[in-house]
Amino acid sequence: MSTISAEEQHPQKVFGWAAKDPSGILSPFKFSRRATGENDITMDILYCGVCHSDLHTIKNEWGTADYPIVPGHEIVGIVTEVGSKVKKFKVGDKAGVGCIVGSCGSCDSCSRDLENYCPKMIITYNAIDHDGTKVYGGFSNKLVVNEHFGVNLPENLPLDAAAPLLCAGITVYSPMKYYGLCKPGMHLGVVGLGGLGHVAVKFAKAFGMKVTVISTSISKKKEAIEQLGADEFLISKDPEQMQAAMATLDGIIDTVAAPHPLYPLLCLLKNDGKLVIVGLGGAEKPVELPLFPLLMGRKLVGGSGIGGMKETQEMMDFAGKHNITADIEVIPMDYINTAMERLVKGDVKYRFVIDVANTLKSS
Amino acid sequence: MSTISAEEQHPQKVFGWAAKDPSGILSPFKFSRRATGENDITMDILYCGVCHSDLHTIKNEWGTADYPIVPGHEIVGIVTEVGSKVKKFKVGDKAGVGCIVGSCGSCDSCSRDLENYCPKMIITYNAIDHDGTKVYGGFSNKLVVNEHFGVNLPENLPLDAAAPLLCAGITVYSPMKYYGLCKPGMHLGVVGLGGLGHVAVKFAKAFGMKVTVISTSISKKKEAIEQLGADEFLISKDPEQMQAAMATLDGIIDTVAAPHPLYPLLCLLKNDGKLVIVGLGGAEKPVELPLFPLLMGRKLVGGSGIGGMKETQEMMDFAGKHNITADIEVIPMDYINTAMERLVKGDVKYRFVIDVANTLKSS
Repeated sequence: MSTISAEEQHPQKVFGWAAKDPSGILSPFKFSRRATGENDITMDILYCGVCHSDLHTIKNEWGTADYPIVPGHEIVGIVTEVGSKVKKFKVGDKAGVGCIVGSCGSCDSCSRDLENYCPKMIITYNAIDHDGTKVYGGFSNKLVVNEHFGVNLPENLPLDAAAPLLCAGITVYSPMKYYGLCKPGMHLGVVGLGGLGHVAVKFAKAFGMKVTVISTSISKKKEAIEQLGADEFLISKDPEQMQAAMATLDGIIDTVAAPHPLYPLLCLLKNDGKLVIVGLGGAEKPVELPLFPLLMGRKLVGGSGIGGMKETQEMMDFAGKHNITADIEVIPMDYINTAMERLVKGDVKYRFVIDVANTLKSS
Repeated sequence: MSTISAEEQHPQKVFGWAAKDPSGILSPFKFSRRATGENDITMDILYCGVCHSDLHTIKNEWGTADYPIVPGHEIVGIVTEVGSKVKKFKVGDKAGVGCIVGSCGSCDSCSRDLENYCPKMIITYNAIDHDGTKVYGGFSNKLVVNEHFGVNLPENLPLDAAAPLLCAGITVYSPMKYYGLCKPGMHLGVVGLGGLGHVAVKFAKAFGMKVTVISTSISKKKEAIEQLGADEFLISKDPEQMQAAMATLDGIIDTVAAPHPLYPLLCLLKNDGKLVIVGLGGAEKPVELPLFPLLMGRKLVGGSGIGGMKETQEMMDFAGKHNITADIEVIPMDYINTAMERLVKGDVKYRFVIDVANTLKSS
């Protein structure tokens, strides 16, 4: 219908960094966003977290890449314009946007506040919006979004360290609630001490749970216990430690993206224990599921993917109340390609957050 | 301590049929059971169902066989003697005994009425009793058991057709309750139309659910719908049917003992759907678990093994109220080896039950 490219057909001119091919290398990119609709807010982006999903997507590891891709779905900023019907925000408010910017609004999932499972969910980047144009993420200076997908941010949380809660936070919070792994006195295992895992430890402690971090690397023990407040630390490759910890956990939040054996984790669970997998990175390959522990201990293996908007707000309010944020390393925009290399190696404690407002400069 | 064999050291002389080696061939066998203790009942066995587990065990397919083995854990009979402290039974009462004849009574599982998950659970045969002697199952004329593991049988149910409820019945009833797959209007899938599956259909209908039977064999369609009351029938090997049924089920009770792919079943589930595996036969081998459907639809794969005594009684009372029994083929004791051959081929609708009282004759 038009010879104007999707990047240029909208009135709000935006500047960001995009991946243009499966190298995943990010570089400056000009595009546009729609005018502020009656239910929309427009915000100046201040910070954007860097999620492992960003990396998977820009390198086309999930086979879904539609270049150019502006990643970023842990977005915080200040509202600069609101549509006539907007109720949750006013100009000058802090706002957060996570992994979702649209859903059908009428399906069973949407009606249960589970936009994250809506079959027509529009993710924040590398997706097509209701109007047929591409959506772009938070590695950019400005965002327009339906207010339904905006999150109010607690006054007391620093914006940079709160940003990762919008993906990493809700990804671990939601399954803890859904699977009932949030009760005081329960004993939770957290597998993997990265962006998701370290926030899971903080939420679990705030819920009043005992927390054991399960990791391949002894090097993380000190920080897990001293900085994050975990109660115990298990080296998953130490058979004696694993044996001694058998049948001690009520549940496990497994944040590890790479495929790994489930059997040793199932053995750590008490009867009725729940192993919840939230690390999407390895999800393209099936894993081996041993049935015996499931049947003999009524255990289950479940999954969970981010969370709905109502629960994301609940999570953010909970984080505000308990002063929970991510441990972050703030980086300038032009450091992003180096940051991605470090992310591959797990070399970050625990989340990179881009200082968009101060370092993203239109050339 | 004694040169008297375990089979002979008890005062109550019993006659049954036992497997004596991994051929699994059953033949007459004399043994003994303990005197009726103060908490025990002794019963004359009238009928005993034939479970797939019997076959697995006597052929040592689980590697646990301790010959001689008298199988049988779907046992019904008439109480002939009660101990001084017995409260649930009096002489002349009908009684049922299922898969469990002992547990520790003090662990977390026991305290939650989940003797079936007690680490010291004593199964009905091929196990060692509290006193160090072997326990033998229901392919025999007489049983002694702690009354805690006896089930009161509803007056209205025929004993022969009620017997399979003690294993097959509770095995499907318990997970339907635990996983919440028992609510009117829900849509349940039942995989496999054998001893377990056909009872699952009956319970699900009694709960007010819509039921789809999923089977490899079209030959079972007519009986599933006309005799058992299933609403729909799906051929699992027909990709078009499976595609059309995607995302329609709230849960699945998977009774198939042989290893089989889970992915097509997970696709049948709605979001938040639950795939519950109760078929122990294939449990010694891990299966492939695709993670994507778990994460993208918050689905879970869980297990369940039989049920506790309180729930077994609840199940039996429910069966009485709704007039639920197994569809059975009553056989004489000396037909058992032929019956086992037919069981391997799935050639029974749907449970063999041995007419112990009339056909088990001490030679």
